[in-house]
Amino acid sequence: MKTHILVTNDDGVTAPGLLALAEAVRGLPDVKVSILAPDRNWSGGGHVKTLERPLRVREVTLADGSSAYTSDGAPSDCVALALLGFFEEKIDLVVSGINPMPNLGHDVTYSGTVTAAMEAVIWDTPGIAFSLGSVDNHLGALDYTAAAKVAETVVTRALQHKFGPGMLLNVNIPYLPHEELNGIRITRQGLRVYRDRLDKRVDPRGKPYYWIGGDSPTGTAEEGTDVGALINGYVSITPIQLDLTMYSAIPTIGDWGW
Amino acid sequence: MKTHILVTNDDGVTAPGLLALAEAVRGLPDVKVSILAPDRNWSGGGHVKTLERPLRVREVTLADGSSAYTSDGAPSDCVALALLGFFEEKIDLVVSGINPMPNLGHDVTYSGTVTAAMEAVIWDTPGIAFSLGSVDNHLGALDYTAAAKVAETVVTRALQHKFGPGMLLNVNIPYLPHEELNGIRITRQGLRVYRDRLDKRVDPRGKPYYWIGGDSPTGTAEEGTDVGALINGYVSITPIQLDLTMYSAIPTIGDWGW
Repeated sequence: MKTHILVTNDDGVTAPGLLALAEAVRGLPDVKVSILAPDRNWSGGGHVKTLERPLRVREVTLADGSSAYTSDGAPSDCVALALLGFFEEKIDLVVSGINPMPNLGHDVTYSGTVTAAMEAVIWDTPGIAFSLGSVDNHLGALDYTAAAKVAETVVTRALQHKFGPGMLLNVNIPYLPHEELNGIRITRQGLRVYRDRLDKRVDPRGKPYYWIGGDSPTGTAEEGTDVGALINGYVSITPIQLDLTMYSAIPTIGDWGW
Repeated sequence: MKTHILVTNDDGVTAPGLLALAEAVRGLPDVKVSILAPDRNWSGGGHVKTLERPLRVREVTLADGSSAYTSDGAPSDCVALALLGFFEEKIDLVVSGINPMPNLGHDVTYSGTVTAAMEAVIWDTPGIAFSLGSVDNHLGALDYTAAAKVAETVVTRALQHKFGPGMLLNVNIPYLPHEELNGIRITRQGLRVYRDRLDKRVDPRGKPYYWIGGDSPTGTAEEGTDVGALINGYVSITPIQLDLTMYSAIPTIGDWGW
C-alpha cells in the first residue's frame, strides 16, 4: 500500500513553498500525496482548534495544475480535518511548509508550520515541519530548490526509520544553493532573541493604537542548537516533544512548603 | 517596592474567573495588580503573536467596580503589550485564568490560558496559569471560591521562592469545595484522550461544511500526572518548560545515515 502523505502549511495553499514541498514528496516511490492547507496566511497564529464555528473545505488548482484542498481553518485545523477523516485513506505522515522564514527556538509554539506538525503528533501521526532560513519574507521570490531537495532526503529517512510517538521533527534549511550546504545537524532548540517593541500611534480620530513592532528576532548562535546550525550553513533537524514538563523542577517546587 | 502582578485570561475581561483571580491576588501584601485581558473569548486559540494589524486597548470597569484594560488581541498579545511597556511600571509576575475548564496534557499548546503564561516566560517574567477542573463550560455559574483560595496560596509560594527562567506553572484545581481538596501535587504533564470527530453537514444551499465535533476530552488517570491528580481531588501544579527538545532522540536520529 502507498504511503499517504498530507502536505499543509501556514502561508496558505497558494504559497510557492507548499508547491515545492508537494513536488518534492510526490517524487518519492510508493507515495500518494494529498494537500489540505489554509486559504490565507496564518503565520504566528499558534496552535488552534476551531470548535466554535464550522469549517469549509473547497478544491482548488495549484500553479502546476495539480489539485489541492483549502480550508478556512488554521493549519492545525487542516491537519485535524485530514486526520479525522476528510480523506478516505488514512494519512501516514504530515509534512508542513516550506515556510519562507526560519522557525527556531521559542518560535515553535507560535509557528503555524510547527503547530501543524504538533497536531499530527497529537493524533499519533508522524509530523515534520520545514522552514527556510531566509532573512526577509519575500513570498514568491524565494528559490525553494535546495530546501525541497533536503525535504526529499529528510522524508525518505523518516519513512525508512519511522519515528516514535509524541515527537515531531522541526527542520530548518539555510537559504543557500544546495551545494553550499555544509550538511545536516541534529540539534536542540536554541535561544531566540526577540526584539519586539511596542509602537504606540494615534489614529486620525485622536485615539491610540499599538503595533507589536521592532526588529526581526535574532538568535544565540550556540553550538548544538538550531540557531547555531543554521548560522553555520547546516540544515538543522530538531526533535520536538509534546511533553513540556520540566522534570528537574518537580522536586524543587515540592519543597516550597505546601 | 510593590510586586506588580498582571492578571489576564483567555475567556475575556468580563469572565468571572478573571475577577476571582484578580481579587485573590489583590489581597496579598505589597502587591499592585493590573488587568489587561482580551475583549472576547479566545479559548483554543493557541500561542498568537499579532503582527499584521495594530491592537486597540480600552479601559473598562469590572463587575466589582474596579478598573481594567481590554484589548482586541489574543491572551499572549495582551501579555506582550503589558510586558513591552503598556503599563509604566515593570510587571513582575503574570497570572492567567481562572479558566473554567481544565488545561491538562496536550491542552497546554492550544490553551490561551497557558500560552499567556508562556508569553510571559519568553519575556523573562514568571507566569502562572490557573484552571478549574469543571466538567461543563458554564461560564458565570461556577463557584471560583476554592480555586481563588488556591491561587492565593500558589502565588504566595511563587513570590517567596521565585522560580527560574524558561519555566511556567500550570495549575489545575478540582471543582470541589476548598475543604474537600485532598492537597497539592507537583505533577508531570499527563495524557489527554481527545475524542474529536469530524461531523460533516450540508448547508441550505447544498454545500458541505465540517464541525470538529465529538465528545469532550478525557484523560489517562496515571499516578504522578496532572490528569491523575485532578481526578483524585488534588490540586495539580505542573512545571512547564519552553525547551521542547526531545533530547533522547538526538543520537537516534543522528544514526539515520545522513
